[in-house]
Amino acid sequence: MSQGGTLMLPEHNDSLLELCRPVRRILARVGDKWSVMIVMALKGGPRRFNDIKRAIGTISQRMLTLTLKSMERDGSVKRTVYPTKPPRVDYELTALGHSLREPVERLSLWAIEHEAAITKAQSRFDALDPQG
Amino acid sequence: MSQGGTLMLPEHNDSLLELCRPVRRILARVGDKWSVMIVMALKGGPRRFNDIKRAIGTISQRMLTLTLKSMERDGSVKRTVYPTKPPRVDYELTALGHSLREPVERLSLWAIEHEAAITKAQSRFDALDPQG
Repeated sequence: MSQGGTLMLPEHNDSLLELCRPVRRILARVGDKWSVMIVMALKGGPRRFNDIKRAIGTISQRMLTLTLKSMERDGSVKRTVYPTKPPRVDYELTALGHSLREPVERLSLWAIEHEAAITKAQSRFDALDPQG
Repeated sequence: MSQGGTLMLPEHNDSLLELCRPVRRILARVGDKWSVMIVMALKGGPRRFNDIKRAIGTISQRMLTLTLKSMERDGSVKRTVYPTKPPRVDYELTALGHSLREPVERLSLWAIEHEAAITKAQSRFDALDPQG
């Protein structure tokens, strides 16, 4: 579909969109559903891999490993190996990771608060457009 | 790696993780990077498809179409077709979509504020673990 010319479009403040690539990349990751779930799972303190996995419920082993590793790389999660047999591996939020809690909880609360409205909108949409 | 038993683990407050599936699904979508970008792109008012695409920069036509459609289905975006030749199609945030702005902006500001710390942590991590 043609959208016509662009010169007539009103001006918008795109400061957040015009950010350099690294910020977008960070945003893409912290907004990722698994990162959000991990932040929530670790907010009470250190937990082991399988305990995090169980808390999240639907995440695969591979995806949890990858997400924890990229959060460790970003400095928001700390991984500690205890030399027991078998070795015990704990994950916990760093100070940076804890600073993510507040914005992440805001987003979660928004989802909880608006769940009913969204479900209603979806039913309405699907009734008008049944093939989705 | 074995994580050992779970009965010894301290209790955590998982209320947000134990939420029913729909809330998780909503969270997965609103935390999605493209939804975040679209909310930011539309915060100033209605825009046409190609204008949104240009503002976001790195999104494919297909992904923008899909994301706008699921946001329309959720009731956070309204799509209006004007019967001009060629037809003009505008997208705008609904009241529900506008309510998403605040939590989404919080997350974006977090990313901007902590970009330097994250980049530093990544360099440190990569120096210790060069094969990633």
